[in-house]
Amino acid sequence: MRTVKLSVSYDGTDYIGWQRQAAGTSVQGLLEEALESVVGHAHAIAGAGRTDAGVHAVGQVASVVVDSSMPLATLVRALNAHLPPDVRVLDAEDRPASFHARFSARRKVYVYRLLNTSIASPFEHRYAWHCPIALDLDAMQRAIDLLVGTHDFSAFRGAGSEVASSVRTLQRATVTRTSSWTARRDTVSAGGGLVEFRFEADGFLRHMVRNIVGTAVDIGRGRMMVDDVPDLVASRDRRHAGPTAPPEGLFLLRVDYEEEVR
Amino acid sequence: MRTVKLSVSYDGTDYIGWQRQAAGTSVQGLLEEALESVVGHAHAIAGAGRTDAGVHAVGQVASVVVDSSMPLATLVRALNAHLPPDVRVLDAEDRPASFHARFSARRKVYVYRLLNTSIASPFEHRYAWHCPIALDLDAMQRAIDLLVGTHDFSAFRGAGSEVASSVRTLQRATVTRTSSWTARRDTVSAGGGLVEFRFEADGFLRHMVRNIVGTAVDIGRGRMMVDDVPDLVASRDRRHAGPTAPPEGLFLLRVDYEEEVR
Repeated sequence: MRTVKLSVSYDGTDYIGWQRQAAGTSVQGLLEEALESVVGHAHAIAGAGRTDAGVHAVGQVASVVVDSSMPLATLVRALNAHLPPDVRVLDAEDRPASFHARFSARRKVYVYRLLNTSIASPFEHRYAWHCPIALDLDAMQRAIDLLVGTHDFSAFRGAGSEVASSVRTLQRATVTRTSSWTARRDTVSAGGGLVEFRFEADGFLRHMVRNIVGTAVDIGRGRMMVDDVPDLVASRDRRHAGPTAPPEGLFLLRVDYEEEVR
Repeated sequence: MRTVKLSVSYDGTDYIGWQRQAAGTSVQGLLEEALESVVGHAHAIAGAGRTDAGVHAVGQVASVVVDSSMPLATLVRALNAHLPPDVRVLDAEDRPASFHARFSARRKVYVYRLLNTSIASPFEHRYAWHCPIALDLDAMQRAIDLLVGTHDFSAFRGAGSEVASSVRTLQRATVTRTSSWTARRDTVSAGGGLVEFRFEADGFLRHMVRNIVGTAVDIGRGRMMVDDVPDLVASRDRRHAGPTAPPEGLFLLRVDYEEEVR
């Protein structure tokens, strides 16, 4: 038996999310079926983050305890041969038996993309939230600056979450304007038609990134004030935050473990 | 009656190409149906370039003679309301009656994208040709340099083309290595996992860009030599060129008219 760490990238558009459920196709389910086809036995695969339906991953991490001596490069090729093109295993590495994709994770990095142009783009409708409104990025950055540090993030926590504590440490939160070669024209503001958030934390609550982004956009368009943020956090009341941003803009960029954090 | 120039962007993955055909969904057909719904009459829409099945457009141009006095901003909004999200009208402008998207075009710019990583990307499989092989970009650039100028491009002309002359003037041809935030890791060569060609010409023959790219990739991997290119062009024989690169990497970036070329 060996413990294998898998790096997985997927376009979440057509899936019910990472986690296997009673109905629908999940990324976890696809990976488990591919692994069973390759090694001949069923194995449970654990994911670092349970991305929701429509959410993407550039670098999701999964772990599995597997009874196979197959060389890892062969395993990667074989898994990809059994997966659809919108799910790819990028890498496989041996890890100590103590390694678990979720429990060993020390830091996660999420990116959230907005398309801030008056007309939507055929190339971004799966990968960005279309906001055809002028946004005050300075105000948005000041708002998310107030969230950096260790806080009870209950005000940004989605329903249906099962974890006990809602305290997390947000290490970094940025929002910048950028451009895409497919969407350079027709920008609502100068500096490029895309707005990219980046969040790094020791962990995230359910819908936490999407609720922070929805709140930041409300601030960027003047519906809420930066000065309201401390009270919002202190209230620990989800009803005081902005709407949940849609899933298509969210990407799990990276998961770091002890060796990357040190 | 007025002549309207439309700028159109589309993800060609799910379409049979620009042109209406007996079976299947075309971009031209979708636009004509949307226009009929909006203005209440059927109108023929002319496109600058007949992109093939699976080929994309960032800035296709179309023209239509329409009997409607609708403000153009309203027309754009109404057309987009009748189109699927992978086809967007970006802009509409009034033009003189002499304007025709195809016959008035003076220059077209195409981009062709290769994903040059060992493992494919879930975010690029619709938008790039996956080439998991080391490529000599210097040789590829020298090869396409030999095509710049006025030549008979019969050696790169696809079957089924109806135009009389196969002489075209290629004004610019470049190939550069670039990167994508979704595909930074796992590059076959240093300098980023994407390879981007850009071609500017007064016009292109059917499959011309894809046949040039297929030939350049054969040169980049050492199957053909740069020195073979002059004889290949002189032969005017399609059988001497490389394979046709697949459609998913090709984008019609821009079409220029008299005012842009001057």
